[in-house]
Amino acid sequence: MITAQAVLYQQHGEPQEVLFTHSFKIDDENLKPDAVVVKTLASPVNPSDINQIQGVYPSKPPKTLDFGTEEPAAPCGNEGLFEVLKVGENVKDFQPGDWVIPSNVNFGTWRTHALGTVSNFIKLPNPAQTQQQNDPAKKGLTVSQAATISVNPPTAYLMLTHYVKLRSGKDWFVQNGGTSAVGKYASQIGKLLGINSISVVRDRDDLDETREKLKQLGATIVISEKENLSREVSADIKSRVKETQGEVKLALNCVGSKSSQGIAKKLNHNGLMLTYGGMSMQPVSIPTSLFIFKNIICAGFWVTELLKNNPELKKKTLAQIVEWYETGKLSDAPTNKIQFNEDAKEELHSLYLRGINDKNGKQLITYNIGVNE
Amino acid sequence: MITAQAVLYQQHGEPQEVLFTHSFKIDDENLKPDAVVVKTLASPVNPSDINQIQGVYPSKPPKTLDFGTEEPAAPCGNEGLFEVLKVGENVKDFQPGDWVIPSNVNFGTWRTHALGTVSNFIKLPNPAQTQQQNDPAKKGLTVSQAATISVNPPTAYLMLTHYVKLRSGKDWFVQNGGTSAVGKYASQIGKLLGINSISVVRDRDDLDETREKLKQLGATIVISEKENLSREVSADIKSRVKETQGEVKLALNCVGSKSSQGIAKKLNHNGLMLTYGGMSMQPVSIPTSLFIFKNIICAGFWVTELLKNNPELKKKTLAQIVEWYETGKLSDAPTNKIQFNEDAKEELHSLYLRGINDKNGKQLITYNIGVNE
Repeated sequence: MITAQAVLYQQHGEPQEVLFTHSFKIDDENLKPDAVVVKTLASPVNPSDINQIQGVYPSKPPKTLDFGTEEPAAPCGNEGLFEVLKVGENVKDFQPGDWVIPSNVNFGTWRTHALGTVSNFIKLPNPAQTQQQNDPAKKGLTVSQAATISVNPPTAYLMLTHYVKLRSGKDWFVQNGGTSAVGKYASQIGKLLGINSISVVRDRDDLDETREKLKQLGATIVISEKENLSREVSADIKSRVKETQGEVKLALNCVGSKSSQGIAKKLNHNGLMLTYGGMSMQPVSIPTSLFIFKNIICAGFWVTELLKNNPELKKKTLAQIVEWYETGKLSDAPTNKIQFNEDAKEELHSLYLRGINDKNGKQLITYNIGVNE
Repeated sequence: MITAQAVLYQQHGEPQEVLFTHSFKIDDENLKPDAVVVKTLASPVNPSDINQIQGVYPSKPPKTLDFGTEEPAAPCGNEGLFEVLKVGENVKDFQPGDWVIPSNVNFGTWRTHALGTVSNFIKLPNPAQTQQQNDPAKKGLTVSQAATISVNPPTAYLMLTHYVKLRSGKDWFVQNGGTSAVGKYASQIGKLLGINSISVVRDRDDLDETREKLKQLGATIVISEKENLSREVSADIKSRVKETQGEVKLALNCVGSKSSQGIAKKLNHNGLMLTYGGMSMQPVSIPTSLFIFKNIICAGFWVTELLKNNPELKKKTLAQIVEWYETGKLSDAPTNKIQFNEDAKEELHSLYLRGINDKNGKQLITYNIGVNE
């Protein structure tokens, strides 16, 4: 019998008001044939996790009595890495020690253990398995890489590959939020695919340093938001693009407002702008003439929705990202790690609250717990 | 030999600065085999005509020496109705007395006569030809209808039919600029196609009267811009839409700014917003969440570009509009007529300047000139 803990909420609201830690039992002695018991290795705090708790996110986990609460409650967290502890007699795809991630959102990853079935999980290679391949070019995934592989890297990869045919060595994409996690993945993946990129970053004192860092990651051109709105800079970029005999076919917008105007103006005729975030908290803004005379199209990107009914695409995408990680071609976004210690007095949910309140970078709660304790 | 006049410009600028009237000869005694000589019956002033003269419109007529000017000059006007005077020996499609309109933009319609070839013109039925059909349900086109048939009615018709499948008796479109010429055509054509519509109009004192007029034309619901941004009104509309078991699949935007936000919010999931104008002179504005969570798509509509390489679509579209006009099912936008009188002292270009300066409704310059005078 495993004593597990999970972070739950019964009503929507601010996390510090509604989250609580709940203990529940997993009977791992009497497993159903297709059952899979896992323990958590790490799970991050994503902005959408917080919005789910607040009740302002369109995709929500159903409230359930499955955790043994008196009132229906919903689990938190959508991304995370588990290790398989034990499987039912019919389970062939997984064995103890395997690394798995949830196959869908809303599974609940802010918890110590979970009992699921085969269809709840997707397998990733764990470091021992990678080592067994005896490929000197490959090293194993890190816990951070595996625990944060479901949202940001696929967002960047799919926006660059799923909509517009960008010709390697010629075509360009432009993005704002160049220093965001997705922005950095997009610059790197663009480079890996041979695609030129223009990254727009917030005006800042250390602009030159930021420019250098992003170029080292793979960005072709890095400009500030002020430069994003400058005609001279746009003319410069136009001539750089012309030199490559390519076109700016895609814009990735996670800011909105004037920033979205600036990147939309850099698109060539018939270009596509995908909006996947709204960091300015202002609406997306596009000059009328771009629609009428340049035939620009604007659409949205939501990785959850795209992959929900497309498990094959998810599998292919994850396999590509795993390969890039294993061969050291892709760097993951750094995470701030908060270690869960079962023996300490701090309850599980308050670790996640610490993660929610720390706005510096991506917060990852890591677990180092035994089995059956 | 015909002595003709045309309104031309040699440099771009404000119309009162750059337009001039130029006389030229058309030798109608020695026609080439495929030549077509026409006289003008009427041509309107469209906003895009003015933008072309100013040099701020992406589609422009080339400057040419064809009119016999010393310096290259470009003709004005894109829409207009001509009557065929004489044709070359190989011309089978047209005969004297036929009504024709330019088959493409940039032909130049602010002039008394033109010499072209068969490919320059599309034939419309003149009133005598309609009468010969002996169909009591049909009356002939008016000069106003025929002279203004190329831009606004096709814009409304094609936006409603060329992109999204709107199910008759169920689906809806929403538009701002409900009292504009295109807006009124869209309400009427929507009704003719069995499509429900929501028309947004500027806040005004005579709102109830405007509401009534537009409903009589065919609009299902008419709301003010203030109501466009009200949650209560949106909820009301949602329940009206639900009653029809349809969806709001299409939004037509000619305003931008907050008005575009309001109509975009009325779209159902996967809805399309087409932008065809920007009367607020502000960018199109769309809430981020509509892109990400409702999968709204935004694109532009430019009738010139759509029909440029699609003569069959143009023909079919015009045939439908002609039929609705002839059977009295569609009302044209009223025009203010300014009559050209060759014997009067006022030069041709100053009539068009009067039209440009009169901002009340659509201005139509009409001609009543003899042949060979």
